[in-house]
Amino acid sequence: MSVIRKDRKTVIGILGGGQLARMSAMQAIRLGFDVAILDKEKNSPAGVLTKKEFVGWVDQKKVFDEFIEASDIITLENEFIDYTYLEYIKNKGKKVIPDSKTISLIQDKLIQKTTFDKAGIPVAKFIEVNDRTNYESIKTKLGNKFVLKSRKMGYDGYGNATVKNKNEFMEALQRLSKRHTELYAEKFVPFVKELAIMVVRTKKEIKTYPVVETIQRNHICHTVIAPAVIKQKTVLNAREVAIEAVKAIKGYGIFGIEFFLLDDDSVLVNEIAPRPHNTGHYTIEACTISQFENHIRAALDLPLGNTELVKPFAVMINLLGKRNGVGVVQNYSEAFNNKNVHLHIYGKAESRIGRKMGHITLLGNELNTILSQAKKIEKKIIV
Amino acid sequence: MSVIRKDRKTVIGILGGGQLARMSAMQAIRLGFDVAILDKEKNSPAGVLTKKEFVGWVDQKKVFDEFIEASDIITLENEFIDYTYLEYIKNKGKKVIPDSKTISLIQDKLIQKTTFDKAGIPVAKFIEVNDRTNYESIKTKLGNKFVLKSRKMGYDGYGNATVKNKNEFMEALQRLSKRHTELYAEKFVPFVKELAIMVVRTKKEIKTYPVVETIQRNHICHTVIAPAVIKQKTVLNAREVAIEAVKAIKGYGIFGIEFFLLDDDSVLVNEIAPRPHNTGHYTIEACTISQFENHIRAALDLPLGNTELVKPFAVMINLLGKRNGVGVVQNYSEAFNNKNVHLHIYGKAESRIGRKMGHITLLGNELNTILSQAKKIEKKIIV
Repeated sequence: MSVIRKDRKTVIGILGGGQLARMSAMQAIRLGFDVAILDKEKNSPAGVLTKKEFVGWVDQKKVFDEFIEASDIITLENEFIDYTYLEYIKNKGKKVIPDSKTISLIQDKLIQKTTFDKAGIPVAKFIEVNDRTNYESIKTKLGNKFVLKSRKMGYDGYGNATVKNKNEFMEALQRLSKRHTELYAEKFVPFVKELAIMVVRTKKEIKTYPVVETIQRNHICHTVIAPAVIKQKTVLNAREVAIEAVKAIKGYGIFGIEFFLLDDDSVLVNEIAPRPHNTGHYTIEACTISQFENHIRAALDLPLGNTELVKPFAVMINLLGKRNGVGVVQNYSEAFNNKNVHLHIYGKAESRIGRKMGHITLLGNELNTILSQAKKIEKKIIV
Repeated sequence: MSVIRKDRKTVIGILGGGQLARMSAMQAIRLGFDVAILDKEKNSPAGVLTKKEFVGWVDQKKVFDEFIEASDIITLENEFIDYTYLEYIKNKGKKVIPDSKTISLIQDKLIQKTTFDKAGIPVAKFIEVNDRTNYESIKTKLGNKFVLKSRKMGYDGYGNATVKNKNEFMEALQRLSKRHTELYAEKFVPFVKELAIMVVRTKKEIKTYPVVETIQRNHICHTVIAPAVIKQKTVLNAREVAIEAVKAIKGYGIFGIEFFLLDDDSVLVNEIAPRPHNTGHYTIEACTISQFENHIRAALDLPLGNTELVKPFAVMINLLGKRNGVGVVQNYSEAFNNKNVHLHIYGKAESRIGRKMGHITLLGNELNTILSQAKKIEKKIIV
């Protein structure tokens, strides 16, 4: 039975009030829905958009219950909420998209990799790191160069360490163990490019967005090129693998899948995120229906929109904080120097060096032109 | 000096909280600004988007003062606010875009027409209706068929009456005089099509959006076709006339200009609106930068964005209330039956038959295809 109300606006609850929630909420509101936001901070990027702003988190029973009560259906903007909290919502009679089962297969990356591996989805070789493993046993399985990773809560490179010898291993083990109790190791993949794709799925449909190239800077997504300039057979293969990955975790909703492209044009799945994804921000202007709108539609099990590009190319560049201070653009005129730029500022109160404060997108017929324009604009904007 | 703040979000105050304010506010927020909304009703379409929601109107000093105090700059979504209230804002040291002078030349349509006429802008013949005029004197000046119109507060056909003989004149005079004290008459124009164009102007730039065809139903804008299928020389002429019209009223900000297209391919200006306009809703998806974003940019005197179409054609159809009841779409699945439709629902609490509740937009390469698709979708959606 549909959760969509006919007697009042349907309220979509979002766990988290960051930029992903903000951009999802904007689409939900445009479609005539209401949103409820739960975030630890008041005036979060998404919290400012609604009167149904709940300040607190899932471990604060009172406010969590109020948030659940105010919502007709609940979705999320990050995968770090222990899935037992999602089960708690379900037990209160409210649907969660993605499901707690899916989250349980994702949030522990060792379980995620094992699930993919069992389903025949190509992933880098990996091994659990525990009391019974040591440097030698890992090296034997993965080779000289590998990456030590936390099983949970890792993002944007936090909780990862590349290891080339025993000393580095001991160092990394000590450093990561301070914040992360459970670790695993993954063979280092000498990739040619990093790729990503968004997949959106309802009970009736499954759709993919274009395969994009993502360029990281300090382990943070910096530039996205849509579509990736790769062989057509790789595109088809990546799409197929991404769909299988979503099915393997019994995923419904929207998912971002990151790949490594190898020099034989094959791909390995790096990881999957059960939510809108930084590599899909370009879809707001570049695709007929954006990842954020399809996120909302999927949460409500509505027919999905067209995921195709409206122009041949799009470039998205993140605006990372260039200083510590107020989270407000200091030079809007410079930002709008290019008449085609699409500017997104997330409205965070504080800017910090390297923090994701916004992004820009450019569409065009020639990739090199918009890529160099986008780089110039990004350099100029101070936020 | 720029009103844009660097120490906190700049707050753009909007007089009115309807759909035009809502769609402007969404763009403002996306760009990292904050909005303050003044509307007579709580939870207005734009009021729901901000914590700076002021309930009341310009004639309620306390709330009006609070709204002015909360805003760094103020703009509006309708031209029916007596310009003396805009002067009041100016006297409080806050800038208003468009200026009270511009509004004073627009809100009384007799003054508007006189201003245009003096500036050499083509308008239908018109005459003031007062104690010294009668049916015969009007007929002598305008011919047998003319339109009796209220000078102020007319919109969507309210306050207008077409007159073909003395009986109709007496009837119309009596009916209109009940609600409108000041009237004027305009020669009836046997137009071929109705056209419209958006113009946006800052101190440094003036830009036009495409000339569109607007199809009215019961005097309400119903369908917009972008671009209008008309001769290129008419496009150029309409653009030129529109720019002159904006200059004639010393207009800065965004303006919608409506035209009558005559059978000799010339145009007459019907009226001008100093704000985003229903005939410009298609620009949200169809143009690189929408009328709403350029509205915000113009209010802040920032560089304007590209007004060109991203696809060859766009069709916008208004979703008018089909029943009296809750203002919520009753059948979202039907609405999303077409995978390319862009749905906008304004979030009004109550639907009433004929009330503007939302709109849909379709983009494409073939006008006839998207026009027939849009008509089908509009028929299906119940709101």
